[in-house]
Amino acid sequence: MSDVNETYPHSWYMPPSGVERGAFATNYGDPLTPYLAAKEETYRISPEDITGIPPIPIQPIGFGDAQRLICELGGDAAPDEWQGSFHCKYNYGGPGFKNTSTFKESDVQMNISNYGEVRNSSNVMGVIRGSVEPDRYVIYGNHRDSWVHGAIDPSSGTSVMLELSRVLGTKVKQGTWRPRRSIIFGSWGAEEFGLIGSAEYTEQYLPKLSQRTVAYINVDIAVFGPRGMPSVQNVIFQAAKQVDAPGVDSTSVYENWLKYSNRTSPEHGTIPRMGYLTGAGSDYAAFVHYLGITALDMSYTYDRSKTNARIYPAYHTAYDTFDYCSKYIDPGFLSHQAVARTAGNILIRMADSLVLPLNCSDYAESLEDYLKTAVSLYQEKLQTWNISMEPLQSAVANFRKAATQMDQMIHSSDLANETPLKVRKINDQLMLLDRAFLDPLAFPDKYAFRHVIWASSSAGKSTFPGLADAFASAESPGQPSAWGKVHYHLSVLSQAINSAADMLVEVI
Amino acid sequence: MSDVNETYPHSWYMPPSGVERGAFATNYGDPLTPYLAAKEETYRISPEDITGIPPIPIQPIGFGDAQRLICELGGDAAPDEWQGSFHCKYNYGGPGFKNTSTFKESDVQMNISNYGEVRNSSNVMGVIRGSVEPDRYVIYGNHRDSWVHGAIDPSSGTSVMLELSRVLGTKVKQGTWRPRRSIIFGSWGAEEFGLIGSAEYTEQYLPKLSQRTVAYINVDIAVFGPRGMPSVQNVIFQAAKQVDAPGVDSTSVYENWLKYSNRTSPEHGTIPRMGYLTGAGSDYAAFVHYLGITALDMSYTYDRSKTNARIYPAYHTAYDTFDYCSKYIDPGFLSHQAVARTAGNILIRMADSLVLPLNCSDYAESLEDYLKTAVSLYQEKLQTWNISMEPLQSAVANFRKAATQMDQMIHSSDLANETPLKVRKINDQLMLLDRAFLDPLAFPDKYAFRHVIWASSSAGKSTFPGLADAFASAESPGQPSAWGKVHYHLSVLSQAINSAADMLVEVI
Ligand SMILES: [Ca+2]
Ligand SMILES: [Ca+2]
Ligand SMILES: [Zn+2]
Ligand SMILES: [Zn+2]
Ligand SMILES: [Zn+2]
Ligand SMILES: [Zn+2]
Repeated sequence: MSDVNETYPHSWYMPPSGVERGAFATNYGDPLTPYLAAKEETYRISPEDITGIPPIPIQPIGFGDAQRLICELGGDAAPDEWQGSFHCKYNYGGPGFKNTSTFKESDVQMNISNYGEVRNSSNVMGVIRGSVEPDRYVIYGNHRDSWVHGAIDPSSGTSVMLELSRVLGTKVKQGTWRPRRSIIFGSWGAEEFGLIGSAEYTEQYLPKLSQRTVAYINVDIAVFGPRGMPSVQNVIFQAAKQVDAPGVDSTSVYENWLKYSNRTSPEHGTIPRMGYLTGAGSDYAAFVHYLGITALDMSYTYDRSKTNARIYPAYHTAYDTFDYCSKYIDPGFLSHQAVARTAGNILIRMADSLVLPLNCSDYAESLEDYLKTAVSLYQEKLQTWNISMEPLQSAVANFRKAATQMDQMIHSSDLANETPLKVRKINDQLMLLDRAFLDPLAFPDKYAFRHVIWASSSAGKSTFPGLADAFASAESPGQPSAWGKVHYHLSVLSQAINSAADMLVEVI
Repeated sequence: MSDVNETYPHSWYMPPSGVERGAFATNYGDPLTPYLAAKEETYRISPEDITGIPPIPIQPIGFGDAQRLICELGGDAAPDEWQGSFHCKYNYGGPGFKNTSTFKESDVQMNISNYGEVRNSSNVMGVIRGSVEPDRYVIYGNHRDSWVHGAIDPSSGTSVMLELSRVLGTKVKQGTWRPRRSIIFGSWGAEEFGLIGSAEYTEQYLPKLSQRTVAYINVDIAVFGPRGMPSVQNVIFQAAKQVDAPGVDSTSVYENWLKYSNRTSPEHGTIPRMGYLTGAGSDYAAFVHYLGITALDMSYTYDRSKTNARIYPAYHTAYDTFDYCSKYIDPGFLSHQAVARTAGNILIRMADSLVLPLNCSDYAESLEDYLKTAVSLYQEKLQTWNISMEPLQSAVANFRKAATQMDQMIHSSDLANETPLKVRKINDQLMLLDRAFLDPLAFPDKYAFRHVIWASSSAGKSTFPGLADAFASAESPGQPSAWGKVHYHLSVLSQAINSAADMLVEVI
């Protein structure tokens, strides 16, 4: 790896000067205007009151500089776990460099030219008004800014969005098609600095977005590997079955996906594995966590059996270029095409289906999965504190029962021949399901995280995030009083899941 | 007044032993389960962590005891403003009683038998499923508990509710009528201890109530004098015009009301005066302040030219009895009947009208009124701190423009011949208008107050409550840093009003 002949332009790995940038803020959105849209006249907090920005400055460097610094460090040998891929012995470096180094007696001086500055950024929006339900929105978005050239992040996604808007826009202008529901395209600004464009958009339009949005589709680093609320799994599968895998005529995207990444579902057997939107990695964050809008995100993925890279190596470097993309990421841009076809298929299903293609039984399966993990990790210990998990179990059971009822109702009805208001009633139940999981008070220490199922968590368990975090705090030394918070969060969670179940049962 | 021959049973004034009770908590709902429904298994905070209960115990007494204690107090003469209606000179009482008093050398000993106790309380619910839009709720409620006998508070309102449910229930059972939307009757428990039944109900069912409720109608101490969101003024007027005033055949409730309490509206000229729901005086509180549901409240009123009593004297005493009510409050129960007819008329209009009878232009008028007051009270001072009221002015102007547009759209459309989904779109805009004024972070120090227009305020100004309170704090000595909070709240308020305006403009 430290041989330049093994790196770009000879392979997809970074040359010595490749440096990955990144935003390290824990909050998303404009740091000066929490919970308020950053308009010209909006009140701004003092810069010293900004929270969520790490106090230690970070300067990423390329492996060329890193190798030089690491291999010339003196002092005792570092432990085995610290030894890395440079062809040298890694030392603690305390103090200074080796006596044999040309750096000996030298200090490292870093000249950093980062500075803070307030800059304008714009979202560019496009709209197709729906023909039958203009007051229902399907939002499709990606950011437009990039760290350097950004051929893949975000332009692969942006090219997909532009192509979709071109194709759909042409049909609308020709008068040959108009979606049942309204479609809103959002090209967000300032994503790389903390999802600022999309977060400010949701802050500015919260009530109407929250009341009218059917789904948010995010395609940033396009090339597949989707994540989303469990209720969108089925519509992604349907779309993926109708699109050929890139460069393979007789294999669908679905079959290809199933081959590389799968799981066993109690209800569906072996199916492709779809991730959850538990973090704030791209512009879906505000839609999912702040507004509780059903969402999905497609992002770059690759055959993980061939590499252990966390993501494509040029990610957030100056090498994320057209040349790199066309040589190493998607020669012939066939994956771009397959993603555009899949995402477009999903978009049209969301916007045009009489009944929204959202499946609440798949949501139940995920909740049951989270519950199972929670019970196995926490129940025994919680019993010793006299905290019962029964209310949570009963809430999940209520949700499953309500989802089954809803599914049966949809399948047993001839909805195409039902009154428009009966169909609308069902669609509203499906659309607003995720909103019922919101609790603005559930995570007082997490900025704009309100969705009790998908909020970020530091506990690293595949279960309800607030419960996992509360349990981890309570277990840390000297925190016995924190068991009350675990009990409290169990009530928050049970109430939210029961509320979501209530959305699905017959309305009165 | 201190002559027993002038008091009940000889007049409506209280006899010497009449004692008014009351709840003094500043928060509403069960104090042990903030923001969570108080179910069996819900996490309860420690009793010592309860907030919003005054630390000084209060023991109200009747005027018989008060006269004895006040008139026998010794010490210097109290100031003129302290002198009252007992036929004696009021003294400071420092220390002790007069030398001539039989109490001289005595202390007052109070034996108080108040105690805290956890008790169960129930809401009793009744439901009529809507025929066309079952997923839209009109909720009609009143409490069932009382301090003592409660003939007027709450039984006057409860008798109205029972009569309405009897009449409507009979029609539904006969199969001669079923409302377009669902009607939910709520007989709330534990109102007198802090609106507990209704508040817990909203906590338990928040998402579905907030997404589906068209209006909440509260009739507690029935006899008229309504308050509500400005958007309900028109439907109350329409109903009041169709009902005869109690005991007067040729005068409508509307004309009678106009005579006793009126104001000049820029748009409508002289009209009856309707109050706002700015406090938490009855079970509308959680619907208005926590859920942002359009609401109205009818409560006891009387000809204020004939008395300066704050409310009927038997209020919250043991004398609130059938005898008292039938003699002094509503002989012949004609006002009960008029209220039932008016409230029923409103209920049916809310539940049955094709287009919801909510008028957003009347809302605009109230916002303009609040704005005018705010500008005249605050603008000059705010300018000295470089804080502009322009964003607020422009938000109110946006709201007015959007309301006019919405009104024109409704009036220029032949909605009876429009598609069901077009009518539903308009109704959703009207129904959800108040939701757009909610901000769960606007009042961090006020329990469950989220509606930025109608929240309670301690500043006592007829304008935006958060602005008035923030201004008052900033003006208090030693608080110059609090001007930032005024600026912040102006942004909160402008964003909320703009969001509400956004609900009314064409949906995309
Ligand atoms: Ca902001
Ligand atoms: Ca509660
Ligand atoms: Zn990106
Ligand atoms: Zn990026
Ligand atoms: Zn009452
Ligand atoms: Zn009362």
